[in-house]
Amino acid sequence: MNSDTKDSDPGSPRAFRVRLGYRGQGFHGWQFQPDVRTVEGELRAALARLSGQEVETRGASRTDTGVHARGQVVSFELATGMSDAALRRALEALTPDDVRVHRVESVAPDFDPRADAIEKRYLYRIRAASAPSLFDSEYEWWVRSPLDAGAMDAAARAWVGTHDYRSFQNRSPNPPETSVRTILRTRVSRVGSEICFQVVGDGFLYRMVRNLVGTLVTIGSGRWSVDDAKRVLEARDRTAAGPCAPPQGLFLMEIRYPGDPPCPIESGRVGR
Amino acid sequence: MNSDTKDSDPGSPRAFRVRLGYRGQGFHGWQFQPDVRTVEGELRAALARLSGQEVETRGASRTDTGVHARGQVVSFELATGMSDAALRRALEALTPDDVRVHRVESVAPDFDPRADAIEKRYLYRIRAASAPSLFDSEYEWWVRSPLDAGAMDAAARAWVGTHDYRSFQNRSPNPPETSVRTILRTRVSRVGSEICFQVVGDGFLYRMVRNLVGTLVTIGSGRWSVDDAKRVLEARDRTAAGPCAPPQGLFLMEIRYPGDPPCPIESGRVGR
Repeated sequence: MNSDTKDSDPGSPRAFRVRLGYRGQGFHGWQFQPDVRTVEGELRAALARLSGQEVETRGASRTDTGVHARGQVVSFELATGMSDAALRRALEALTPDDVRVHRVESVAPDFDPRADAIEKRYLYRIRAASAPSLFDSEYEWWVRSPLDAGAMDAAARAWVGTHDYRSFQNRSPNPPETSVRTILRTRVSRVGSEICFQVVGDGFLYRMVRNLVGTLVTIGSGRWSVDDAKRVLEARDRTAAGPCAPPQGLFLMEIRYPGDPPCPIESGRVGR
Repeated sequence: MNSDTKDSDPGSPRAFRVRLGYRGQGFHGWQFQPDVRTVEGELRAALARLSGQEVETRGASRTDTGVHARGQVVSFELATGMSDAALRRALEALTPDDVRVHRVESVAPDFDPRADAIEKRYLYRIRAASAPSLFDSEYEWWVRSPLDAGAMDAAARAWVGTHDYRSFQNRSPNPPETSVRTILRTRVSRVGSEICFQVVGDGFLYRMVRNLVGTLVTIGSGRWSVDDAKRVLEARDRTAAGPCAPPQGLFLMEIRYPGDPPCPIESGRVGR
């Protein structure tokens, strides 16, 4: 650690909010587990090296194995005299190359990255072509059949609103009390053979985005019609929906908190 | 090899043209060398497995270590009864994952991928940001300083035409007789922090595209002005130009032959 990151006057604990990105292929997901490589585990190791203590962390979203993030949010308390910018540089230096610490902000002690989130945006990339991408195969789902992006866009719009999305929820150890959520905005766009699905909502159920995508691909390939999007939603039954799309196409893009502008849907472009 | 790729009736030798792509990071460039991994070496190994013989190959462009390709072109003669499509599938199956065999075509016996090329298109990707890309660092040059893409676009236009480009030529073991070439079209475009340089010409000198890019970045960063593009060209002296840009941002996109439409400049988008 260079002198820039040395913490000579730790003071009393303060609360921080960190926005970070990661390449999902190297991790068993976000959440800390004792014997496998996780993003939260790497962040805690960096905080332990920085402070000499165990630091509790809380992530906004428990992304699965293989899922990528551009804007995961995590909070922790740390007794430090460092500025936000110096703490960002220190954490960036102490975390591995497949984690990127974008921003560190001091927040109120009662900040809760999960409960305080008001919007989340996800992006899912699909390649519809005769062969997987030579350069991007770790960042998209390769589908052999041609896909009708217009039909997929129309289908996704049928899900906008406040609904019971249990058709798109996989079983999990700690299911939430309700499967009612609000999808605020969606868009399906195409550039060449790449199709990009974006969705903004107030929260998502376990594997919900990937189940939405599996259903969209079933519709886009022509096996189901656009009207089936509504039928699947209203069935309130997981077996009514399409398959769960694989993790490598999914990016947690950003999380909105009070005071932030609404999460934008990126225009046309298949970005990440 | 499955029955689809078995060659039961080889017949007499025929000439083929193959268009292929590769991820440059795994190769010591295109050209065959006995003891290192090269793209041409992998292709020859696939042809040897297919035919049981050594097959001579000839590539259109000797891309350097680390340079990527979407549309390299190579020719060879092979005694085979296979259709073009079956030969493509066989070569795709017999080459490693970081090589993609896009197309196989039967051509006239005197086809020469180097001498017959009438246009080549290259694309170079730059990221101008405070940190390298989390997802694309193997496919772009990360530059810390902000870059003026408009100035870079104007500078590149000063190089269009038929000129002596020796200012942009590195020394090589077999230098060409003349350093006069024709640049037909250029474009510098920006999407967010990504800047993309595209150039189409009738041929390029050793390291010429990377030396053009190094000069463009010197101009885009403000150390040189747009007018310096012309000064560097007219100096006819390698030491007058900017540094050689690193290989990982460079893509050989396509090569045009008689009968093909002109190489397009892709609009706006940072594609590959």
